[in-house]
Amino acid sequence: MSSIKDVANLAGVAVGTVSRVINNSGAVKPETLRKVKAAITQLNYIPNEVARNFKMQKSKMVALLLPTIWHPFFSELAYYIEDELDREGFKLILCNSGGKPEKELYYLDMLQQNKVAGIVGITYNDIDKNVSTDIPIVSIDRHFDKKITCVTSDNFEGGRLALRELVKAGVRKPAFIGSLTEVPSETMNRKEGFIHEAEALGLDFVVYEKPDPVTDEEQFYSEFIREHGDVDGVFAITDMFAANYIERAGKEGIRVPQDVKVIGYDGIQDHQLFHPVLSTIRQPVEEMARTTIRLLFKKIEGETLDRETYRIPVVFRPGETT
Amino acid sequence: MSSIKDVANLAGVAVGTVSRVINNSGAVKPETLRKVKAAITQLNYIPNEVARNFKMQKSKMVALLLPTIWHPFFSELAYYIEDELDREGFKLILCNSGGKPEKELYYLDMLQQNKVAGIVGITYNDIDKNVSTDIPIVSIDRHFDKKITCVTSDNFEGGRLALRELVKAGVRKPAFIGSLTEVPSETMNRKEGFIHEAEALGLDFVVYEKPDPVTDEEQFYSEFIREHGDVDGVFAITDMFAANYIERAGKEGIRVPQDVKVIGYDGIQDHQLFHPVLSTIRQPVEEMARTTIRLLFKKIEGETLDRETYRIPVVFRPGETT
Repeated sequence: MSSIKDVANLAGVAVGTVSRVINNSGAVKPETLRKVKAAITQLNYIPNEVARNFKMQKSKMVALLLPTIWHPFFSELAYYIEDELDREGFKLILCNSGGKPEKELYYLDMLQQNKVAGIVGITYNDIDKNVSTDIPIVSIDRHFDKKITCVTSDNFEGGRLALRELVKAGVRKPAFIGSLTEVPSETMNRKEGFIHEAEALGLDFVVYEKPDPVTDEEQFYSEFIREHGDVDGVFAITDMFAANYIERAGKEGIRVPQDVKVIGYDGIQDHQLFHPVLSTIRQPVEEMARTTIRLLFKKIEGETLDRETYRIPVVFRPGETT
Repeated sequence: MSSIKDVANLAGVAVGTVSRVINNSGAVKPETLRKVKAAITQLNYIPNEVARNFKMQKSKMVALLLPTIWHPFFSELAYYIEDELDREGFKLILCNSGGKPEKELYYLDMLQQNKVAGIVGITYNDIDKNVSTDIPIVSIDRHFDKKITCVTSDNFEGGRLALRELVKAGVRKPAFIGSLTEVPSETMNRKEGFIHEAEALGLDFVVYEKPDPVTDEEQFYSEFIREHGDVDGVFAITDMFAANYIERAGKEGIRVPQDVKVIGYDGIQDHQLFHPVLSTIRQPVEEMARTTIRLLFKKIEGETLDRETYRIPVVFRPGETT
């Protein structure tokens, strides 16, 4: 297949001149124009260039990278993201990338080839080296090392709020339980807020965490229960950690909320049909999703955003566990 | 913008001749070829045709139409569908079409324009008149009027199985509760299986249903509880109906499973952390998803399938409610 170089050689002009002819940009002498067009016709060159131009047309697809859609928080998020994209006629490509960094890299390639207009990502893989600041990516919950825009719930304030609600419920020795990811993550601020507030109030407190993912759950919770029997309040990094703790504590005869008050984080329960209904710091999922997409649209249009991280306020939702 | 007609007029040839030149198909006299190429160059015509050819390239996108991704059954299904598509390098476009038939029609258009290679749909909207048998669509759970391939759990056997399990648990007067959709749906077979088995066993039974969607849940359950106080077993059309019934029955002093045994349908609970853990007919979600995509690939390749409906076997998963 002929290249733009072949056309330039045949016409006896520079590649830039051929490019100007093709794109109708910049002045070209009539005689040069004729030569280039003749060379293009003779070599049947145009199709490839046009195909390329066609490819360069702005895609109206946005890729959503999630560890897995099969999770109540992520599926709620995906619901509102699709809804917000739809308002502008954009389509959502869904990718479960959990444990598969190669899938994430594939979408970064698609973005560079303009096959998708942007990427929204919750990724726990370390793809930072492939990500630059000038491409339309918005991260949710997770900070990339470089200056990728990040939308997150206000995790630090959420941690402070959880601590205050535990104290309000009568807790004297609170514990934070969670897992610790290798890659820096906004969610770690839940713990920081908890510690900050506990120290401000001069409380005796416990931080109990293990590297993520926690593979031996039995061991994780039984060790915590065994070693910290004096704890009367638990703030868990997610609702799933809270529910797991409550289930296992119950088997050891610990009653929630009578013996230990528990607060989770996320707000994954949509109704009151399954118990315990967790007391939790509710993520503002809808607002996070819509904010993410509105920021992504700005980036797609080439705007520079004024901030790196957008933190959306959280609320405490009382349940049956405090 | 110039059309193929303009080129034909300028070159003084038929449209078919221009088409043969563009596609390099069929013999064209050298003089005619020269004229057509000159007209193409003069009118700057080729781009559109090439763009069109480019568009016609087979898409590697499949659209998934769901009422909402924000639901445990649908998000599990979407998870496995994306995974199965990914094995063949296909991407998934996600569409929440609940209550928005215009979104579904939009994707049918995309399919006709080859922008998506196929559609997988759980749709409760009446889009049948726009669907023909020869396009790559596979329906899940829902029958279109026309011969669209449908993958579903074996709802009829699921209904029979639920009835037998209730009887095994000691139930003497079972009831089916559910809602009745306007559009014919495979899920209605859950009731049919239940009735079939109850009649075969000569049991006295109740069928309690209202038009879908049930807007006044309070009214729905309290009327059932009031009018059918002698029922000692309930088979609910979905787990959500089962959970709703149990919650409201509890408020009326009815204990589950002591007074009434309850079986749901779906298997939306992935773990045993929230209670009650429902006894349920578990949908074979992973197998349904993978079967759906393998059938869709066959349709995309133009194969004729030997069946219209593919029913995947279900199992009973005991919980705390029988």
